[in-house]
Amino acid sequence: MSCAARARRLDENADITVLEKTDHVSSASCGLPYHLSGTIASRSALEVETPESLKASLNIDVRLGNEAIGIDPVARTVTVRTSDGTTDVPYDAAVIATGTRSATPPIPGLDSPGVTTLRTIEDAVSIRSVLEDGNDDHRPRVVIIGAGFIGVEAAENMIAAHASVSIVDGGDHPLGFVDPDIASYATQSLQALGADVLMGTTVARITAADPSSDHTTPLRVTLSNGDPLDADLVLVATGVVPNSEAFAAAGIRTDRGWIDVDEHGATSLPNVWAAGDVTLRTDRVTGSRHPLALAGPSNREGRLVADAILDPDHARPFPPTLGTAIIRVGHSVIGATGANATTLTRAGIAFRTLHLQPSQHAGYYPGACEVDLRVHVGSDGRILGAQAAGSEGVDKRIDVMATAITAGLTADDLIDLDLAYAPPFGSAKDPINFVGYMAQDLSQGKLTQTQATDLPDVIGSMMVLDVRTPREFEQWHLPQAINIPHTRIRDHIEDIRRRAGARPVLLVCASGKRAYLAHRILDHHGIASSVLSGGMNTLGRYL
Amino acid sequence: MSCAARARRLDENADITVLEKTDHVSSASCGLPYHLSGTIASRSALEVETPESLKASLNIDVRLGNEAIGIDPVARTVTVRTSDGTTDVPYDAAVIATGTRSATPPIPGLDSPGVTTLRTIEDAVSIRSVLEDGNDDHRPRVVIIGAGFIGVEAAENMIAAHASVSIVDGGDHPLGFVDPDIASYATQSLQALGADVLMGTTVARITAADPSSDHTTPLRVTLSNGDPLDADLVLVATGVVPNSEAFAAAGIRTDRGWIDVDEHGATSLPNVWAAGDVTLRTDRVTGSRHPLALAGPSNREGRLVADAILDPDHARPFPPTLGTAIIRVGHSVIGATGANATTLTRAGIAFRTLHLQPSQHAGYYPGACEVDLRVHVGSDGRILGAQAAGSEGVDKRIDVMATAITAGLTADDLIDLDLAYAPPFGSAKDPINFVGYMAQDLSQGKLTQTQATDLPDVIGSMMVLDVRTPREFEQWHLPQAINIPHTRIRDHIEDIRRRAGARPVLLVCASGKRAYLAHRILDHHGIASSVLSGGMNTLGRYL
Repeated sequence: MSCAARARRLDENADITVLEKTDHVSSASCGLPYHLSGTIASRSALEVETPESLKASLNIDVRLGNEAIGIDPVARTVTVRTSDGTTDVPYDAAVIATGTRSATPPIPGLDSPGVTTLRTIEDAVSIRSVLEDGNDDHRPRVVIIGAGFIGVEAAENMIAAHASVSIVDGGDHPLGFVDPDIASYATQSLQALGADVLMGTTVARITAADPSSDHTTPLRVTLSNGDPLDADLVLVATGVVPNSEAFAAAGIRTDRGWIDVDEHGATSLPNVWAAGDVTLRTDRVTGSRHPLALAGPSNREGRLVADAILDPDHARPFPPTLGTAIIRVGHSVIGATGANATTLTRAGIAFRTLHLQPSQHAGYYPGACEVDLRVHVGSDGRILGAQAAGSEGVDKRIDVMATAITAGLTADDLIDLDLAYAPPFGSAKDPINFVGYMAQDLSQGKLTQTQATDLPDVIGSMMVLDVRTPREFEQWHLPQAINIPHTRIRDHIEDIRRRAGARPVLLVCASGKRAYLAHRILDHHGIASSVLSGGMNTLGRYL
Repeated sequence: MSCAARARRLDENADITVLEKTDHVSSASCGLPYHLSGTIASRSALEVETPESLKASLNIDVRLGNEAIGIDPVARTVTVRTSDGTTDVPYDAAVIATGTRSATPPIPGLDSPGVTTLRTIEDAVSIRSVLEDGNDDHRPRVVIIGAGFIGVEAAENMIAAHASVSIVDGGDHPLGFVDPDIASYATQSLQALGADVLMGTTVARITAADPSSDHTTPLRVTLSNGDPLDADLVLVATGVVPNSEAFAAAGIRTDRGWIDVDEHGATSLPNVWAAGDVTLRTDRVTGSRHPLALAGPSNREGRLVADAILDPDHARPFPPTLGTAIIRVGHSVIGATGANATTLTRAGIAFRTLHLQPSQHAGYYPGACEVDLRVHVGSDGRILGAQAAGSEGVDKRIDVMATAITAGLTADDLIDLDLAYAPPFGSAKDPINFVGYMAQDLSQGKLTQTQATDLPDVIGSMMVLDVRTPREFEQWHLPQAINIPHTRIRDHIEDIRRRAGARPVLLVCASGKRAYLAHRILDHHGIASSVLSGGMNTLGRYL
């Protein structure tokens, strides 16, 4: 629709036809999970536009219930199936914006009644009808397969609608777009809401519950470990596949089904463009081409394709994508932009990771809480990716980092950003500025880090010095650690030197801040040391 | 303190002495207004560090009650006055970070008891003691002179403490850092809270109330128009002056009292640096040198001066400042970054202004509300400044714009930003992306604007076409306007052409969005038109 609307604003005379398979145009897909809880109570709120509204304001001919089942690039026609049969619709320019559908994993019984996906308004309405009998005494049982965006958002909203939710995923952490330590916020939040989070687990089969048993639910889900789960409803949210078969059959170039396009959205077929989730996208950080289902880039590409068709001299190319994404689950907000550690490692890009846990606003103002930040920095200083979790201020820091990455700023350049500070909003030294300072200290050799993920390999050859208070130390500490609070380090230099011997010192505190102060002191005394990045807080997120 | 702390981290052996005139070090100045209401209830919360905490963690010698009253750059000593007399403190490097004090306007009676400023913890405690007897039946009367940051924040917090507040300022709008239309949000919010906002008004004199009258307040404030105001307390918040006299006397180069420094904070005196609000700063947009009292740049400069002194090979220069600032007042948040219209006009920089009123997050998600955005764009496409007002999402958009300006992005480049979208946080097309699209349409001639501020000059020669619904039109419209809803424009092309004759058409709607659709239609039919930028909403903010 962003393509059609832009096309009309560029050319009042064009005949613009939108062929839509379903009975809705421009529905709010990202809002569907929130209908399950009634947060978005009205179904009509999800229908952002109608054919009538689009005809009136933009003179666009939207044809619902019209499925494009083929394209003939020579005859320049799209074959359309409707309830009345098939017809050919001619075009001068065709734009494929068919998006994706839910993937269907090869699970026996997946076609059982009560197994559903969450892609359409009808899906949301139908799931809600199962849940709406729920209350605190009768909690419908739901098994969600897949702990990505849809699975996690659905879990939260189903719990709000009194469902008892188990979420099952074969990966080692939910929300694969973030690193495991940040993903742990989602696990904790889901568990705090009452969900049963079963990671590293797949579904072996779905069967009808044995009617002779005392089970009251219609479905039984059997897990890979043999455990059974009763279910009134099974939601499959294991990713998406592109709706490209009709065009692949006409010879359009695809990669595993995703349509390949140039920087203006042109496909391999003449006069045929494609935009949105059905296409391959270029990654801004790694340069690789891969699918990425996100509303923001889709919306933009639709518009840019209209420019490419009707105003090619001014058409801005598709920018590479950052994959910026955010999700709220319980009291946690989890966001990311750019590449995560897995992506960088796969792409063979060297990086260092900063961990920080600053407050979202001035600590002396009520309501201060931590934003847990991870920033991956390249060997040239370039920011490669950032992730954050916390209850407030996450979206702002992710958007600033997305802007910085897009503009090609180095991590050191974050020092120079003048960000909005008043006590309710930030600090004189914003978390983003902190990232800059830490990156600079790292690149100038003023900070040496040890990553929590490397600890098993290195801890045996280091002296572990925990610089927290004795009270913090008593609560939890590394078994090898000795405790000298950071304010007492200066009094124990020779003691530390003697105990360390030839070993470097691993400095540990809660977040890394006090350990850094100790690190600077030891450095001046010629004692080799490094800081556990993110401190015990980050370490705990890997356990 | 940021300089002292960084210095210690760079050099464990340095003797670091901090001379502080008051009895507090590192107090939370920006939190003082919030102590008046008890939002920050505890005085101790405002004392971020103490000499003891700084000695323990950083081995810094903080001397409270030590006022630097002179400097001898040849002898390399600072003359210090304490309660025990004066002494000379030697230095290898001196850093002036004396900041500012409240300006005292030439108002007769300003030295009366009950007239105060709000600069120190003592000020805040003393004001609170006057307010703490207040309740709904007995409202202490306060007159605030000056409607800048401190005046407006104090007003809000004093009202929360049951004070009856009048705020008096000689300017035409509060919060001089933003343009008048955005400032109107502050006026409205203050009035909604119950404040009496008297702009374009100064104070002629302050006198003791006539004891023979029935006045129960100790002070009487007489305004420039002769009107009297009773007051229990008068708060003077008319800006700041630099604490530089002691150094100017030693020959340090200043401009109207503000200390001139180079890009590493070096002053005109050898081995003497300066940082923070006492210095002149370079404006990133205009390149001019001017004072700017802000915590963020001060904090950064302190650190960078420590680098310049102790690690000069790695010292990053002071970045030019953007003046990014934000304030919350009632339900409004008002923020800005970069130059405002007045600054650009004075600097002779050509600019165009975009006005947008998008929602802070997806409209279909509960709680959607407008962010009113102003963006000034240079003739080269560079972003020169941005302002925003709204109840949510303001700080995020200002920080993204600050990052974009710092990185040198053009307004068109905002199209490419992948910002975090989930229904509670943003939209598939974020307000920031909208700015990019609008800027591109403007630069490519797809959008022609008329500014609300130009309306008096041009409206007589234009045909005013209001494209809102008849219902909106009836509520309020320009007297010259005719009404054709934007969905009906296509049916009235020849009618519009005939009525316009030789005149261009001024297209008007609520925000400019529907007018833009009509503008594209008229453009295709060869009818010259322009869009009232920001629509009736922005126009209303100038009335």
